[in-house]
Amino acid sequence: MKEITSASNPQIKLAAKLRRRRQRQAHRLCLLEGMRLVQDALTIGADFHSCFITAAAADAQPDLAAQLQRACPLYLVPPKILDKISETVSPQSIVAVTAMPELPLPAEAALSLILDGVQDPGNAGSLLRTAAAAGVDQVLFAPGCVDPFNGKVLRAAMGAHFRVPIRALEDWDAVWAALPAGQALYVASAEGAIRYDEVDWGEPSALALGSEAHGVSSQMRERAAAVAVPMAAATESLNVAAAGAVMLFEAARQRRNAWQGRPRGGP
Amino acid sequence: MKEITSASNPQIKLAAKLRRRRQRQAHRLCLLEGMRLVQDALTIGADFHSCFITAAAADAQPDLAAQLQRACPLYLVPPKILDKISETVSPQSIVAVTAMPELPLPAEAALSLILDGVQDPGNAGSLLRTAAAAGVDQVLFAPGCVDPFNGKVLRAAMGAHFRVPIRALEDWDAVWAALPAGQALYVASAEGAIRYDEVDWGEPSALALGSEAHGVSSQMRERAAAVAVPMAAATESLNVAAAGAVMLFEAARQRRNAWQGRPRGGP
Repeated sequence: MKEITSASNPQIKLAAKLRRRRQRQAHRLCLLEGMRLVQDALTIGADFHSCFITAAAADAQPDLAAQLQRACPLYLVPPKILDKISETVSPQSIVAVTAMPELPLPAEAALSLILDGVQDPGNAGSLLRTAAAAGVDQVLFAPGCVDPFNGKVLRAAMGAHFRVPIRALEDWDAVWAALPAGQALYVASAEGAIRYDEVDWGEPSALALGSEAHGVSSQMRERAAAVAVPMAAATESLNVAAAGAVMLFEAARQRRNAWQGRPRGGP
Repeated sequence: MKEITSASNPQIKLAAKLRRRRQRQAHRLCLLEGMRLVQDALTIGADFHSCFITAAAADAQPDLAAQLQRACPLYLVPPKILDKISETVSPQSIVAVTAMPELPLPAEAALSLILDGVQDPGNAGSLLRTAAAAGVDQVLFAPGCVDPFNGKVLRAAMGAHFRVPIRALEDWDAVWAALPAGQALYVASAEGAIRYDEVDWGEPSALALGSEAHGVSSQMRERAAAVAVPMAAATESLNVAAAGAVMLFEAARQRRNAWQGRPRGGP
């Protein structure tokens, strides 16, 4: 394990740059902070470029350190230098640089999630984690969203980036191109005329979620049918991550029931 | 509108004390920070004790300032003094002191939510907001939870405190006493043998959610049936706020469908 003692070390300088979206895109690399996320990425077999660990953390987790040394160059760094490449307020004991996870998009996505103007990294990350758990086939970040490879999104997503295909798309044509032709398009809206559990999620479909403050874009509103989660009273509202969880798991429930309802020996 | 220029003003000193749980309980008062939450509490008719606003915010929102002046003593304070009574990192422009919302518990709760060891204020607040939207009758904070009247919980709950009865209970006997006798008790668990959509939520029931790190307490595990949200793969997991949203809205969906399925003119 090599030791880094200067913040001007080229590996540290590269990692520090990766806190900016443009640099992440140029290098196709991203930063994973924290023991849990790094461990998760190792288990999944992520493509590690380099990793930085404090002596205390390496001592406390010798097995993890050994695993990391087999995966990539592992550098021992003082906490002060680790802070320079960290995006979090609370100090971390480990930061890894990995290839930006780019799982191939499915040829025919049966269920897509589209984030439209979702800028809160906690909500975006939570929705990615939920999408992976609900069996969503792809998540598309439409123009105007937070970068999916932002450190806070990565942490809130708890490794979902390595399990569900994700794309940040720079224009709307790319969004429409990523959806199978003719598939149903729904947008979550408190004023929606269709109840979310009346939708036939067994058909290929895409669900778009907007920001809590501004809803979805006009591009999306023009094309998508508005679907609502009925609430106890008119004054109530749902956090976008909660609304997404309710709808995506209703889709999962319907798809599971449809599968179980198929005749044995059927198609 | 009176002006406060000193941090040793008794109203400021009282408000600053309310950042501590014990002081909130002693005074039966809590702090609401931020324009949106204060506006929401006014609309709902919360019992305002006092309110502190910066000159910039009072100028920007003259209608809100006028409404607040009718509701309670409103004090003009410099931002530096407002920071002293704020619990947030980002500076606020308004902080109100209100009576701790204590809506009466229902005589017979048909659907209760129990938080057991949930310490993350963002998750607790999000679950309160979701519970209010899903029509939960009461939310019980079992021993070991974050204080429901903590400022971060209040902000994440977006006014749910004023719409759903909430109690922080100091011992388990009080938790059991708050549940109708003989009602079904479920606990969310990834290893649960019962699928969440197989539960008959039309029967009076209570759902317990634990912390992501530690699950629920032994007291709860002994008494409750474990219910799972099926996930796409074994590696997946759900944030506790997302799992709660999925289960509580499945309960709402079943109860709505049962209601709609009743014969017209029936009971």
